[in-house]
Amino acid sequence: MNPFKNRHLLTCQEWSVEDIERVLDLASDLKQKARIGVTTDYLKNKTFFMLFYASSTRTRNSFEAAMTQLGGHAHFLNPKTMRAGDTGAPEEIADTAKVLSRYGHGIGIRIYFPEFGEGEKVIREYAKHATIPVISMESDVYHPCQALADLMTIREKFKETKRLKYVQAWAHSPNALRVSAVPNSNIQIMPRFGMDVTFVRPPEFKLHPDITNQARISAETGGGSYTETDYLEEALKDADVIYMRQHSTLDYGKHGPEKEQQIIDKYSDWTLTNDLMKLAKKRAVVMHCLPVDRDHEIASEVLDGPQSIIYDEAENRLHVQKAVLSLVM
Amino acid sequence: MNPFKNRHLLTCQEWSVEDIERVLDLASDLKQKARIGVTTDYLKNKTFFMLFYASSTRTRNSFEAAMTQLGGHAHFLNPKTMRAGDTGAPEEIADTAKVLSRYGHGIGIRIYFPEFGEGEKVIREYAKHATIPVISMESDVYHPCQALADLMTIREKFKETKRLKYVQAWAHSPNALRVSAVPNSNIQIMPRFGMDVTFVRPPEFKLHPDITNQARISAETGGGSYTETDYLEEALKDADVIYMRQHSTLDYGKHGPEKEQQIIDKYSDWTLTNDLMKLAKKRAVVMHCLPVDRDHEIASEVLDGPQSIIYDEAENRLHVQKAVLSLVM
Amino acid sequence: MNPFKNRHLLTCQEWSVEDIERVLDLASDLKQKARIGVTTDYLKNKTFFMLFYASSTRTRNSFEAAMTQLGGHAHFLNPKTMRAGDTGAPEEIADTAKVLSRYGHGIGIRIYFPEFGEGEKVIREYAKHATIPVISMESDVYHPCQALADLMTIREKFKETKRLKYVQAWAHSPNALRVSAVPNSNIQIMPRFGMDVTFVRPPEFKLHPDITNQARISAETGGGSYTETDYLEEALKDADVIYMRQHSTLDYGKHGPEKEQQIIDKYSDWTLTNDLMKLAKKRAVVMHCLPVDRDHEIASEVLDGPQSIIYDEAENRLHVQKAVLSLVM
Repeated sequence: MNPFKNRHLLTCQEWSVEDIERVLDLASDLKQKARIGVTTDYLKNKTFFMLFYASSTRTRNSFEAAMTQLGGHAHFLNPKTMRAGDTGAPEEIADTAKVLSRYGHGIGIRIYFPEFGEGEKVIREYAKHATIPVISMESDVYHPCQALADLMTIREKFKETKRLKYVQAWAHSPNALRVSAVPNSNIQIMPRFGMDVTFVRPPEFKLHPDITNQARISAETGGGSYTETDYLEEALKDADVIYMRQHSTLDYGKHGPEKEQQIIDKYSDWTLTNDLMKLAKKRAVVMHCLPVDRDHEIASEVLDGPQSIIYDEAENRLHVQKAVLSLVM
Repeated sequence: MNPFKNRHLLTCQEWSVEDIERVLDLASDLKQKARIGVTTDYLKNKTFFMLFYASSTRTRNSFEAAMTQLGGHAHFLNPKTMRAGDTGAPEEIADTAKVLSRYGHGIGIRIYFPEFGEGEKVIREYAKHATIPVISMESDVYHPCQALADLMTIREKFKETKRLKYVQAWAHSPNALRVSAVPNSNIQIMPRFGMDVTFVRPPEFKLHPDITNQARISAETGGGSYTETDYLEEALKDADVIYMRQHSTLDYGKHGPEKEQQIIDKYSDWTLTNDLMKLAKKRAVVMHCLPVDRDHEIASEVLDGPQSIIYDEAENRLHVQKAVLSLVM
Repeated sequence: MNPFKNRHLLTCQEWSVEDIERVLDLASDLKQKARIGVTTDYLKNKTFFMLFYASSTRTRNSFEAAMTQLGGHAHFLNPKTMRAGDTGAPEEIADTAKVLSRYGHGIGIRIYFPEFGEGEKVIREYAKHATIPVISMESDVYHPCQALADLMTIREKFKETKRLKYVQAWAHSPNALRVSAVPNSNIQIMPRFGMDVTFVRPPEFKLHPDITNQARISAETGGGSYTETDYLEEALKDADVIYMRQHSTLDYGKHGPEKEQQIIDKYSDWTLTNDLMKLAKKRAVVMHCLPVDRDHEIASEVLDGPQSIIYDEAENRLHVQKAVLSLVM
C-alpha cells in the first residue's frame, strides 16, 4: 500500500526524483498545518530512536520536535551511556539494531569518524540488521535530511529550479573542522532538479572522487550540470544560490589538526562579504546549514541581511523530517 | 485575543498583580483537574526546550511532567552537548534562539555564573532574539516560577495574604553554595500581595541593593512592607511564614570558596529548630525551595513536623508552570 | 477497585502467582494490540521517572517506548545531573522520592553496587518514602521485569510450563562483570510455575544462600523443583530451556577485578556451543537477557540459530513493562 514503508534514508541518491517530490509535497503540507495549528497525529505513540555518536543542536531538536508534532516520541540516546556496538562494550551493532527494531518504529544515527566513510559504514551496519527504517542524521559522507531541507527552501524561493546557478563554496574558518557531508549531499541532489552546480574550493579541499563522479552522473540524468573551480569570484558570478561553508580536507585524518590549520590559514579571505555578493544576481539567496562561524565563513552583514535564508532553511529541516518519518515509519 | 501569548517570564516584577492572579487561578484549576484525572491537552504536540546550564531535580522534572500533562513534550538539553552560544563553540545565542523559535513553542533556561547578573544576561540575550516565549528556570538573579509556587502555597494555607508576616531568613549550611535568586524573587513578590516582609541575615549576606530597592517599591505599591535586620530571633517573632535558606555573599565571585566558608562558619547557629519555631505564631508555616541541607538549614524535626509545607510547595511548581506554559505558548 | 494500584514491583517474590498471571495476560493483549496498531492510551499524559545509576540499552529504551505506547512519557534521569540522595549532594532519598511523587505517577530505578544488596537497599529506601509505585529496573539482587519477560517468552514457546527443565547456567566471559540479578530472579520465579530448575555454575559462582533458599521454597509451593550442580554437561541433558550468562562471584566486592579475572579464566570452556546443545532436547530454546558477549558466553552459531529466542525475549520486556505500568500507575 505505502511503498515508502520501512525504507531507509541514508543518501538521497537512493531515492528517486519522484520519491523526493512526494517528500517535499508532504513537507509543505505539514508546514502549513503546523502554522495554522492543525493536529497531525500521523505517528501517534510511535517511537524514533536517535543515536548521537556526535553532538548536535538542530538535528536533535528538529527530530525530537518532529516526532512530538506527529504524536510520537524520539529517544535522545548517547551510545556511550548505552552498550552499543562500537564504543568498547561487548554488544554488537547487529544485536542493538535487532532489539531496537522490536521496541520502536525508526532509528536515526549521527556519526563521524576522522577517516572518510567510517561513520557511514556504522550507519549501514545498523541498516543491514534493523527491521525498521534507519535514517541518516549525518555521517562523514552524507546528510540527506539537510539536502532535502535545502532543496525545499530553494523551491520555496524560486519555484522553478531548472537552470538556477547553485554555488557550493568552501569557506574559511579557524574554529570549525567539519565533515563534508553537506557539500557531498548537495552537489549530488541539486543537479537532479535541473540546477547548474558550481563547486568552488581551494585545491586542497576537493571532495572525494566518488562523490563528484556521482554529482556528474546526477547532472546527466537530471538535466542540470556540474562544474568545479578554484576561483571563488568566478564561481560567484551570476549565482542564484550561494552555499558557503567550511569543510575539512580528505587527508585530515592522516595529517592531523596542526597541518590542517596551516592549510586553512592560506585561505583566510574565503569569507562571503557584501562585496562578494555583488558578483551574484540581485535575487541571489545565501544559505548555510548552521552552526555558522560568523565573520569567518560568512560576514554577519550578509547573514543578517535580506538575502540570507538561513533560518528558513533551518526550519525546513523540521518539516522534511516530519514528511520522511511519516512516510517510512 | 490572549494577551499572555508569547510573553517572556524572566522575573515576576515584569508581570502585573492582575497577571499573576490569572496564573494562580489557572494553576489551581489545573491542580484540581490533575487530581481528578481530567485530561488537559492545552499544548498538544507542542515543544518546550529546556536548556540547563546548571543541574536540577525539581525544575527539570516539574517542567517535563508539566509539558506531558498538557499533551506536549519538553526537551531536556545540556548546552554542552549542543553547540550553544557561550560554551566555547562558535554558535551565537542569537542563532540558537532564532532556530529553536522555528522548531518549537517555548524556551526555558537555567544558568548561574559566579558573578551576580552574568547568567541573567544570557537569559535576556535569548529573550531578545527568540520569537517564542522564554521562561527563566532560575538565573543568578531571579527564580520567578519558584516565587509563583511559593505565593500559591501561602494563599492555599492562609487564603488572605494581607498583613501576613513573611520572614525570609538566611540559613547556615557548610555544604551548599547557593545563588540568591529565591530570596531576591520572594522579597519582591510577597509585598505586592500585601505581606509584611522581614529579611534577616548576617551583615555579610545582604542582597544586591537593586534587589532590595525593588522590594521596597513593591511594598509601597502593593500595600505590604519591607524591613531588614541582623537579628534572627527578633525577625522570627510572630512570623506567619518562615522561609529559611542558605545563599552566598555578593562577593563570593571575588573572594572565592575558602573565604566564603570562613564567613559561613561564623553563623553556624542559623538553623531553624523547634525551639526557634516557638517565637513564631502557632499557625506559622515553614518553607524551603529544596534541596534542603537537613539539620543545617532547617532541623529535620521541623522539616518533618506539622508546620512544614515543603512538599506542597514543591508540588505547586508543577501547577504554576503548567499555568504559565499554557498562557504564553 | 484496582488492587494493583500503587503497588511496588521490587521482586516477583512479593507478587502472587495470580498477580503474575494477570500481568502476563495483559502483556499478551498489549503485544497483540501493538502489532495491529490499536492505540492503548492507558496512561495518557502520565509521567514515569527512570533513575539510572547504572547504564542501559534495553531497559531505558523499552521503558521509554512503553510509556509512549501508553500515551504517557518517561523521564530519562541521570542521578548525577540531579541532586539525588547518594551521589555526594545534600538531598536525601526521602526528599527526592516525596517530591517526585508529587510530579508524576511512577518511579523506576536501576542501581548496582559492588557489595551485594547495597543497590537493592537504595531502591527500597525510595519505595519506603514514595507515595507512587516504585519499579526495580534491576538492582544487584533482583531484575523482576526481566524475570516476567523471560517467563512470558517461555509460555509463548511451550504453552504448558509444568515439568519443563529450565537450566540456569553460568557462562564464561573475559569482558563482562555482571551482577547476579537475572539468575537470582529467574531461579525463584520459574519453579513457581511448575518448572524443574537446575542451576549450574563453577563452585566459586554460587549465588547468595538467601536467594537459593527462596528458590527452594518457590519450588515447594509452586510444584516445580530446584537443583544445583557443578557439572555443565550433566545440567544441559534433556533441557527444555537454557539460560546461559556470566555473573560475578559473591566475593567480587572484596577481592576485586584482578582476582575475579583469575577465577573466570579457569572456566574458559563454559561457552554454549552447538555441540553442547546436542545434550538438550531437540525442542530446547536458548535465552539470554542481552547484551551477550558473543562467542564467549554463547557461540554466535547458537545465538543466530533456530533455537535462539533472544530477540523475542528482549521484545517481551516492552510488553510486560507496559502491563505492569498500566496496572500500578
